[in-house]
Amino acid sequence: MVLAYDGAIQRLIDSFASLPGIGPKGAQRIAFYLLQAPDVESQRLVDAISEVKAKVKFCEICGNVCESSPCAICSDPRRDHTTICVVEEPKDVMSIENTREYRGLYQVLGGAINPMANIGPSDLNIAQLLNRLKDGQVKEVIVALNPNIEGEATTTYLSRLLTPLDIKVTRLASGLPVGGDLEYADEITLSRALEGRREV
Amino acid sequence: MVLAYDGAIQRLIDSFASLPGIGPKGAQRIAFYLLQAPDVESQRLVDAISEVKAKVKFCEICGNVCESSPCAICSDPRRDHTTICVVEEPKDVMSIENTREYRGLYQVLGGAINPMANIGPSDLNIAQLLNRLKDGQVKEVIVALNPNIEGEATTTYLSRLLTPLDIKVTRLASGLPVGGDLEYADEITLSRALEGRREV
Ligand SMILES: [Zn+2]
Ligand SMILES: [Zn+2]
Repeated sequence: MVLAYDGAIQRLIDSFASLPGIGPKGAQRIAFYLLQAPDVESQRLVDAISEVKAKVKFCEICGNVCESSPCAICSDPRRDHTTICVVEEPKDVMSIENTREYRGLYQVLGGAINPMANIGPSDLNIAQLLNRLKDGQVKEVIVALNPNIEGEATTTYLSRLLTPLDIKVTRLASGLPVGGDLEYADEITLSRALEGRREV
Repeated sequence: MVLAYDGAIQRLIDSFASLPGIGPKGAQRIAFYLLQAPDVESQRLVDAISEVKAKVKFCEICGNVCESSPCAICSDPRRDHTTICVVEEPKDVMSIENTREYRGLYQVLGGAINPMANIGPSDLNIAQLLNRLKDGQVKEVIVALNPNIEGEATTTYLSRLLTPLDIKVTRLASGLPVGGDLEYADEITLSRALEGRREV
């Protein structure tokens, strides 16, 4: 059994420990760091959290995060509006942008189909994607989901859904380590996977 | 070169990445987690940070963190007021409290002597400790600093300072892995080290 700190410190430790990737020891270290940090530094963190919650929204077109909707990518006329790259999360948009190999648009699904976590197709931005394909402007959909079970299941689902629409459906080339997370792929690997994409 | 996110998100990622033990990928993961979390959850974190900064202070007697000074340990008459355990940081107080082997008081130094980081004896709560030893009530000082170079140097410094005062000066038994950090010692190891303490 472990004794708890005085109220406020323990609440701060608990708050940090509930964030992804931070364990109890790490949360404790951060709490004491903030406690001893200059007020301006802790205030910067508080302001950054509040600002993101107040300002950041989801793009009405692609589902990516942005400060004004439609997002900068959707509203950029120099991007290739005939290609949509489908990703799970906003952070995947940034991973692909960092390759500087892709000039099309995105669709952020907000996750992948996962029966164990009770996430089905209707929980994802799939209707939003289908809606964007209606006017016939989009010629290719690149499915760029994580190379794990949920990503594979979602890719298969999307491929069945999109094939009848007479749109080219491709997926990232293998080369991504299976079981991994798209966000941890280095830029070269991601570039290669993008170049070598194939029809589903 | 890596593209940055829109202003507010990038500022949040940067704020988290500046905390100890959180790298850029971890900061990104946390930022998107908070972005998508219910407002009540992000607000809980914001409130916890603000509350700690507003409420938590340092005990005027021992230097430990507390919500009212003197702290609960210093003002507890059931504790053994003839023994002071000297530690580097408030988190070390909690590590030792968790052993449930120690019933004396503490002195938190606020760090250890470290010439490379420009931390000398005058930057630590050593005058506070000496002041507490003046009235002759304290019979033993247990020096429980981290078993690394800085902790050893500070132990040696304290031992020279305290020996002339006719107070028993002990240190934690070896058994703690050298080069390690006191906070990562498990409770049994810490208990044993406490039992086997020896005079410096
Ligand atoms: Zn958009
Ligand atoms: Zn105290």
